[in-house]
Amino acid sequence: MEKNKNQSQTLTSSPLSPFTPSIRCIVKLGGAAVTCKDELEMINEEVLQKVSEQLRQAMIASSEKPPGMDWSKRPGGSEICCNPEEFGDHSAMECSPFIVVHGAGSFGHFQASKSGVHKGQLNKPLVKGGFVATRISVTTLNLEIVRALAREGIPSIGMSPFSCGWLTSERHISSADLSSVAKAIDSGFTPVLHGDAVLDEIQGCTILSGDVIISHLAAYSKPKYVVFLTDVYGVYDRPPTEPDAILLKEIAVADDGSWSVVKPKLQNSIELTVAAHDTTGGMKTKISEAAMIAKHGIDVYIVKAATSHSLRALNGDLRSSIPDDWLGTVVRSLR
Amino acid sequence: MEKNKNQSQTLTSSPLSPFTPSIRCIVKLGGAAVTCKDELEMINEEVLQKVSEQLRQAMIASSEKPPGMDWSKRPGGSEICCNPEEFGDHSAMECSPFIVVHGAGSFGHFQASKSGVHKGQLNKPLVKGGFVATRISVTTLNLEIVRALAREGIPSIGMSPFSCGWLTSERHISSADLSSVAKAIDSGFTPVLHGDAVLDEIQGCTILSGDVIISHLAAYSKPKYVVFLTDVYGVYDRPPTEPDAILLKEIAVADDGSWSVVKPKLQNSIELTVAAHDTTGGMKTKISEAAMIAKHGIDVYIVKAATSHSLRALNGDLRSSIPDDWLGTVVRSLR
Repeated sequence: MEKNKNQSQTLTSSPLSPFTPSIRCIVKLGGAAVTCKDELEMINEEVLQKVSEQLRQAMIASSEKPPGMDWSKRPGGSEICCNPEEFGDHSAMECSPFIVVHGAGSFGHFQASKSGVHKGQLNKPLVKGGFVATRISVTTLNLEIVRALAREGIPSIGMSPFSCGWLTSERHISSADLSSVAKAIDSGFTPVLHGDAVLDEIQGCTILSGDVIISHLAAYSKPKYVVFLTDVYGVYDRPPTEPDAILLKEIAVADDGSWSVVKPKLQNSIELTVAAHDTTGGMKTKISEAAMIAKHGIDVYIVKAATSHSLRALNGDLRSSIPDDWLGTVVRSLR
Repeated sequence: MEKNKNQSQTLTSSPLSPFTPSIRCIVKLGGAAVTCKDELEMINEEVLQKVSEQLRQAMIASSEKPPGMDWSKRPGGSEICCNPEEFGDHSAMECSPFIVVHGAGSFGHFQASKSGVHKGQLNKPLVKGGFVATRISVTTLNLEIVRALAREGIPSIGMSPFSCGWLTSERHISSADLSSVAKAIDSGFTPVLHGDAVLDEIQGCTILSGDVIISHLAAYSKPKYVVFLTDVYGVYDRPPTEPDAILLKEIAVADDGSWSVVKPKLQNSIELTVAAHDTTGGMKTKISEAAMIAKHGIDVYIVKAATSHSLRALNGDLRSSIPDDWLGTVVRSLR
């Protein structure tokens, strides 16, 4: 059984939370899942639509689909879809408190890496240009995701970390206005945040990733569970493209953040090829981040988007027990 | 000489300002100027492009156009425009501190009025749906305006009042995080705010107009001047479509916010048809709002967008004296 000490930044436990209704779930829409990896600024419409539908099923109890909330013209269209009468019968349309955070995928990465926004130095014209270009690209994706959720009847509200006053200091979050997010939740909305270019108090600017946002939100809002929707079935012991890759089904996290694979029982001879994998996909980083959340007693499910497995995770069906036929990775506290 | 007592909400004078570099100018891009009034969600590309060009000329001293900062794909296009080498020679690309605020025009109004967002009652499903739909529509416009400015080399950053924590109480601003806007300015960016659907502490929600945002920003940031870009030449004594409409060229504002037309000299027999005009375009409201800004000693120019007159206003050329051939309305303090 492999054991890894989590050496990432430790989040303060039990901080003062502005979240009065308890958050049921924080969902990460992985950039790789909802965008087309190999095509610049291209949304994977099919997956995004399915993810939105599953989110609606998990969040809104009614079996009937509520009326859509995106009344804007569709690209190329000239009609606006809005029928006020539709809303009459939905007086009890209650929406479970969820927070959605998405990555950038094929949006933003190009602009950020061309200019080195993550390294700072905002006084350099290229970095400043890249900062602006990155924000344009990621907010374009944010708007499309908000619209896809709204079309399903989810009262989604785009909230950019930059605008919400999220700041970093040497890349670590130094300030984040969670009260705006909490107020949106209190009012019955579903905030949709995203990985963003933000100001950094030391180096001028940086990229704040969706995963770091999730860790921060989870520590402060203490959701019942967190779901990471990705483009593979979960976390593997090596790159999932390798033929012998084994899906790690359950990872247990100790109070100090250290973690170990409890299912499947890995033979001693099988070593996690963490180093090799980290350069390509960050398997160890992913587990460490999930472990940071799980040690607060929050279950984390890493699962393939738009599958029957992701629906069960979003529903919270896995909280009591994990069925044998469920494909995905559960990261949870030993407590 | 007609005198009107300004009875609008009075802004606190000399509040604690988070703005360390003094703001040169706050610009309102009128919704009617940058969108096509009669077509839902349609941008007036020609005017927006020209407005962006004039803003660049006013803000960036260099005669050479700086490299573009929108590296995203254009609708229908597949190419991303970015040439990092272009940025090499622009190490001194300094941008004058401007804040841009835009209205909604043919974006957002439809969604807001269909659902009555301005009247509150967020517990009604139709209002909640309209709130989401309105925000989608106005943020779509915001993104397009940010992109147009970025293409001209203006380091524009979209900042939604909702996300920035702007709240109202019975429709009056009760809280607004100006520090995010100030930090963006400090870092050399041009914040682009917009009329937005926001939460209201008493009635649940409302619409915060671009004009109210400008008044608030002006009171706290004390810009040297404020420019309202509209679709007509300025403020007229009656609806500008009427044949005898007279352009009010100069309006003087007293310390108590009362105002009077000083140019042209109106004969006693000519009365401002304020009541009639107010129902259609809000001439009196417009002057009252401008007067509220002007009484802080800030010159306000109301001028037709994308004309030689708007360029002179944006440049600040009118601060010393108003040339006779300039078409527009100046609202300024008697001091």
